[in-house]
Amino acid sequence: MGGDNAPHIVLAGANIARLRYPDARFILFGDETELTPRLKKLRGLPDVVEIHHTSERVLADDKPSQIVRTGKQTSMRLAIDAVKEGRAGGIVSAGNTGALMAMAVLTLRRLPGISRPAMASFFPTLHGETLMLDLGANVSYDADNLVQFAIMGEVFAREVLGTKEPTIGLLNIGSEDIKGNEALKQAAQMLRDSDLADRFYGFVEGNDIPSGTVDVVVTDGFTGNVALKTAEGTAKLIGGFVREAFKSSVLAQVGYLFAKRALDKLRVRTDPRRYNGAMLLGLNGVCVKSHGATDAVGFATAIGVAVDMVKKAVNNSIAERAAAAQIKNSLAAS
Amino acid sequence: MGGDNAPHIVLAGANIARLRYPDARFILFGDETELTPRLKKLRGLPDVVEIHHTSERVLADDKPSQIVRTGKQTSMRLAIDAVKEGRAGGIVSAGNTGALMAMAVLTLRRLPGISRPAMASFFPTLHGETLMLDLGANVSYDADNLVQFAIMGEVFAREVLGTKEPTIGLLNIGSEDIKGNEALKQAAQMLRDSDLADRFYGFVEGNDIPSGTVDVVVTDGFTGNVALKTAEGTAKLIGGFVREAFKSSVLAQVGYLFAKRALDKLRVRTDPRRYNGAMLLGLNGVCVKSHGATDAVGFATAIGVAVDMVKKAVNNSIAERAAAAQIKNSLAAS
Repeated sequence: MGGDNAPHIVLAGANIARLRYPDARFILFGDETELTPRLKKLRGLPDVVEIHHTSERVLADDKPSQIVRTGKQTSMRLAIDAVKEGRAGGIVSAGNTGALMAMAVLTLRRLPGISRPAMASFFPTLHGETLMLDLGANVSYDADNLVQFAIMGEVFAREVLGTKEPTIGLLNIGSEDIKGNEALKQAAQMLRDSDLADRFYGFVEGNDIPSGTVDVVVTDGFTGNVALKTAEGTAKLIGGFVREAFKSSVLAQVGYLFAKRALDKLRVRTDPRRYNGAMLLGLNGVCVKSHGATDAVGFATAIGVAVDMVKKAVNNSIAERAAAAQIKNSLAAS
Repeated sequence: MGGDNAPHIVLAGANIARLRYPDARFILFGDETELTPRLKKLRGLPDVVEIHHTSERVLADDKPSQIVRTGKQTSMRLAIDAVKEGRAGGIVSAGNTGALMAMAVLTLRRLPGISRPAMASFFPTLHGETLMLDLGANVSYDADNLVQFAIMGEVFAREVLGTKEPTIGLLNIGSEDIKGNEALKQAAQMLRDSDLADRFYGFVEGNDIPSGTVDVVVTDGFTGNVALKTAEGTAKLIGGFVREAFKSSVLAQVGYLFAKRALDKLRVRTDPRRYNGAMLLGLNGVCVKSHGATDAVGFATAIGVAVDMVKKAVNNSIAERAAAAQIKNSLAAS
């Protein structure tokens, strides 16, 4: 029931996803008086869908710290409970991000070896895509957190994105003397001493995110969130400039007609709906956050991310890698 | 003598700038055996130029902490000395950023009321441009620093960019519960209680930088540096995508020919050379850093920024505003 266009786009998104993933089944948590009539109109979808009725929902402006206590019958919370209890493989929500993180962390609990979950998502680059984490699950952080983000990102890139030997970069700034804080320097050293040593590229800068210098960019939630939104805003700005240019003269309009097909392909390539779905990694359960303003196509992408994570059992692999890293650390310490 | 293409582009840049600012005079610090023959070729420039010979220079990989002690005869340091001694109104350099900051802070000293200088620069937006600071002069920071950055940014936007009543935003992230750290919350409160209260827009997010939500974006040096470089990288990526699209078919190539004029105008509009020149604000002297890889046109832009700052006596205004803010704070505290 969350997001700007629920439940309509959630149903329509599931209807797209069911064709892509014929073995997927869906439990819709929400108000059946809203869901049932819409569901009936989407031929084929009712066969793979079950409705779990609740009239409560998390609103966009609900405070996470509050709703986590009072919202036990909300559609979001019941969906998370279903993941916890193994009735669902994962949850996909377009609702309140803060509430989703708070409820998911509280209910699903962290994986062993992970002190803090991280929000991860991917960016388009010239050659493919870059995975970045954390994007806002944490504001404060230490070197251990960054190393754990690196472990989670590497597993995700390898198992879900299919990158053979994903490289990892730590986001930092350029000027030598003031380069980074202690946590960054320490995390770099820990990565160099770890199993991931040959995957660790070193420090990268902001421009390395879109240029795809590494497969996984590791950063704290504050910096990651700012970088992600700055990149989205810049892409939108340049898109606006290009549109304005094509409208600026009759010749340019004619040019647009000739180039339309190529430009349409470009639009598809950079379509934010293709990159929809931020993964909350490090939890005992799959949790994917869709952009609140997305449409059915975007929501289907987010469902796809969750399906992939469930099928590849990403959380198991993360737990294994994190445990191995812990054992190595305690051996080194002893 | 600094930057990738020195001293050639420095001379050629001065040659462009002298036509734009007929009352400007230049002192070139560097090796006269390299400078003199090049200078002679640029008719008119020798009339407004004086060479201050030195054979030493700061190299790109010199460590700031070291060169600040050993580099007292470098062209960079001598140029800063000239500003300190009033023989020059300001310094423009395309050299080692860390060295320039370290030498400028040490030599020119901070303005009264400013605990830390900040690096500032502007971005293009749909409607004009956004000023952002700090971009990397500081990694650690507190609320006072952020408030001082706001004071400096407001003065710069008003006096140099000519923005009538510049609005100020504090860069933060979205999710309510984890919004910002203590320094950010405290700085926001201080700004609401200050003379700048009606200029203070509140918190902004990464996408607000390119969209031009506010005239001045205030942030710490780490976040600002990452945001700036992410934006530059994203703009380059989208530019690359557009170029690829126009090459992707014969029709698209024909379209490009029709739209060429409009696209060329767009290229001029987003030309990084138009935004070259980062200002080190908060010092007792004008100090502008040009991109190391810029050309003569870009270097001339950076010179123009310095000329404007000198003419508008920006540093005096910053000192006045900072002093007023301090008096107000101590009155409030008493």
